[in-house]
Amino acid sequence: MEFISGVKQKETMGIQEIISGDYAGKTVRMEGSVHTIRDMGEVAFIILRKAEGLVQCVFEEGKTAFDLSQLKEESAIRVTGLVSGEERAPHGFEIRLQEITVLSQPAEVLPIAISKWKLKTSLETKLGLRPITLRNPMERAKFRIQEGIVRGFRDFLHSQNFTEIRTPKIVARGAEGGSNVFKLDYFNKKAELGQSPQFYKQTMVGVYDRVFEVAPVFRAEKHNTTRHLNEYTSMDFEMGYIDSFEEIMEMETAMLQYVFELLCEEYAQELAMLKISLPDVTNIPQVRFDKAKELVSEKYNRKIKNPYDLEPEEEVLIGRYFKEEYGSDFVFVTHYPSKKRPFYAMDDPADSKFTLSFDLLFKGLEITTGGQRIHDYDTIIKKMESRGMNPEDISSYLMIFKYGMPPHGGLGIGLERLTMRLLDESNVRETTLFPRDVTRLEP
Amino acid sequence: MEFISGVKQKETMGIQEIISGDYAGKTVRMEGSVHTIRDMGEVAFIILRKAEGLVQCVFEEGKTAFDLSQLKEESAIRVTGLVSGEERAPHGFEIRLQEITVLSQPAEVLPIAISKWKLKTSLETKLGLRPITLRNPMERAKFRIQEGIVRGFRDFLHSQNFTEIRTPKIVARGAEGGSNVFKLDYFNKKAELGQSPQFYKQTMVGVYDRVFEVAPVFRAEKHNTTRHLNEYTSMDFEMGYIDSFEEIMEMETAMLQYVFELLCEEYAQELAMLKISLPDVTNIPQVRFDKAKELVSEKYNRKIKNPYDLEPEEEVLIGRYFKEEYGSDFVFVTHYPSKKRPFYAMDDPADSKFTLSFDLLFKGLEITTGGQRIHDYDTIIKKMESRGMNPEDISSYLMIFKYGMPPHGGLGIGLERLTMRLLDESNVRETTLFPRDVTRLEP
Repeated sequence: MEFISGVKQKETMGIQEIISGDYAGKTVRMEGSVHTIRDMGEVAFIILRKAEGLVQCVFEEGKTAFDLSQLKEESAIRVTGLVSGEERAPHGFEIRLQEITVLSQPAEVLPIAISKWKLKTSLETKLGLRPITLRNPMERAKFRIQEGIVRGFRDFLHSQNFTEIRTPKIVARGAEGGSNVFKLDYFNKKAELGQSPQFYKQTMVGVYDRVFEVAPVFRAEKHNTTRHLNEYTSMDFEMGYIDSFEEIMEMETAMLQYVFELLCEEYAQELAMLKISLPDVTNIPQVRFDKAKELVSEKYNRKIKNPYDLEPEEEVLIGRYFKEEYGSDFVFVTHYPSKKRPFYAMDDPADSKFTLSFDLLFKGLEITTGGQRIHDYDTIIKKMESRGMNPEDISSYLMIFKYGMPPHGGLGIGLERLTMRLLDESNVRETTLFPRDVTRLEP
Repeated sequence: MEFISGVKQKETMGIQEIISGDYAGKTVRMEGSVHTIRDMGEVAFIILRKAEGLVQCVFEEGKTAFDLSQLKEESAIRVTGLVSGEERAPHGFEIRLQEITVLSQPAEVLPIAISKWKLKTSLETKLGLRPITLRNPMERAKFRIQEGIVRGFRDFLHSQNFTEIRTPKIVARGAEGGSNVFKLDYFNKKAELGQSPQFYKQTMVGVYDRVFEVAPVFRAEKHNTTRHLNEYTSMDFEMGYIDSFEEIMEMETAMLQYVFELLCEEYAQELAMLKISLPDVTNIPQVRFDKAKELVSEKYNRKIKNPYDLEPEEEVLIGRYFKEEYGSDFVFVTHYPSKKRPFYAMDDPADSKFTLSFDLLFKGLEITTGGQRIHDYDTIIKKMESRGMNPEDISSYLMIFKYGMPPHGGLGIGLERLTMRLLDESNVRETTLFPRDVTRLEP
């Protein structure tokens, strides 16, 4: 009988191994895709693309046992050669080739030059050819950063005794919904795709006190703007036993501090490649919704049209104000009007026209919505009734309040938006692997 | 202007802080839910439930400034009292109460005694009251273990240079589908919910060489068995530059070793509570599909009905065989018949009736399906055509082969099934927070 007992040492090497080891003058074996070939006649430079970066390989006529004409861009190959220090090469070394083995060949020539440093093409073309254009080193670096954000979010919350949960995405219709939901037939029952894990994460606060989830959410909004997606990743947390809703903002601030430190330490190569300097989140200013409107109205000579609503242009100006006055890319806007928040938001005891809630703006764009939730059964029932909602429709959610819930609150962060602002991109599709919008269902 | 600058020290304590600190005789403050009250007259024991465990609090008439009759099961409270060593109490200490503050009150008495050590009720009742029954310490321990499995999966793959990705769950209809998909209308386009991230994870191998994703998948199968769910969590990975499909099994074995070690180290309390001893995964036997059928047929006197299919009872017997003969709870069954595998599976060059693929059985239940994939464009087109499929239907997937893909393969693991087997549960719904099955769409 044969047994499998774990990962065997590979004979091929990674870039990091070579950089951190003593390989100059030694023969190594490496695998990768042919990113580009620069044929100079007797010498050719073959740039190998690996997950961690690019490697310069030197092909010398007569010294390398291979017919160079067989090599194409995007051939997957295995090479053997001598490591040699070379300052002008990526990572400071090159491989002087002895052998090349082709592992796989493309059938056609690339429709777009992905080996260009920066892809100079329309967003439309880039997204249409996404499976290929993501191979461009600048493009893929964005989603490494995105990975880092999610890792940091999880690792930080884990250190704060949050438990990770997974909640269903197919839910009974009419829960929180309204018209902006994707409907589906579920074995002859009316179902929809979850717009948010809100009810479930609150439920799980009754179980684990502090919980988080990173998962897709779905919104059937017909907006086709630079900041809306119809499927996106929501990073949610919810925490019990809070004394005030400020604790939620404190947790988010500490989380962002942790995330940016992690990016600094482990994603420095990608940050450098994309020329990103991380924002300072030592202190994030907080301002009341009504106060923010006033400040912006005064400074930028803008009339307040509706005291209970915040227009996108106002968000931008609030962002600008706090950048100019306090040097901060972030600002917490608190105490949103009750009308603008869902029924489960806790009203401010000092003035029930407002809620104990907040948005976090990053360079003038809302990337987080959060706040304290109602935890008392009678209070939530009354609030639902005052809005003409029927508590029976969501009795399995209301069960948690009926049988007791601690004071709690939480937030949801749009991962793609946060990435977009961090990378100074102007369209959220740039920071979404395979975006779903009103016109886009493929690839 | 006010600023938020991070998490402030709370005045309330956690169980771990008290255990690891020197708090005997000192006054502490703690928050939690009232799990149960045992009123003995002059003394009452109030058991506080916190995320990390239970805490015994001692209420003494005259010494505690509080009217005990106000306290209910599931009241959320804050207590102040003296820490006192007590061997018979959970974690070896109790709190002799001085003050109690009620933070929140339930509106009604619990419909089920969640403070019983083990919930003695039907699965049906348990799931109907899931938001409440999950508060039972045994119930919630299961999902802490599940959290640990996912953490281990991710952390291990991260250490092996895999990149985490997030791929869309709403996909164009007809991709891999067939009839077992949930259909939805996507802005007048025909869409469905992804059954697997297969196409996307293969696509991302062309970008990052090694990738993984932990995310929901959706299957509209009408099976209503103890091992099927209509929405479940798939833990997927896909790796490029493999020399053989054994490398995928090696990676999975090493991952399982890592996961079980993590559970041992960080989830010991939950394992002990559930009386789980972790299986040995030092060596996992591998056996060919046809050979496995033979072995089982011989040993258990069972006739082979269909040499190209594996019945669930046969899976159970294969599991039993390898437990009896080799003491292993796991077995890799390899070389599944080509007919039984999707078109993208790589056929065995030695015999194209079989594929370079495998399932991993855990105590006789399939928890993983994996294998090497076709990477050559002409080969995959031919295979599709031989199956009567139209390559144009999935041209954005086939793009990756047209423009070059390295040899690669991967697998998908059903998280709830793995948890079910690990915890020796007999129904996969026991290890799913909020299961979705043919009859269940709530809670």
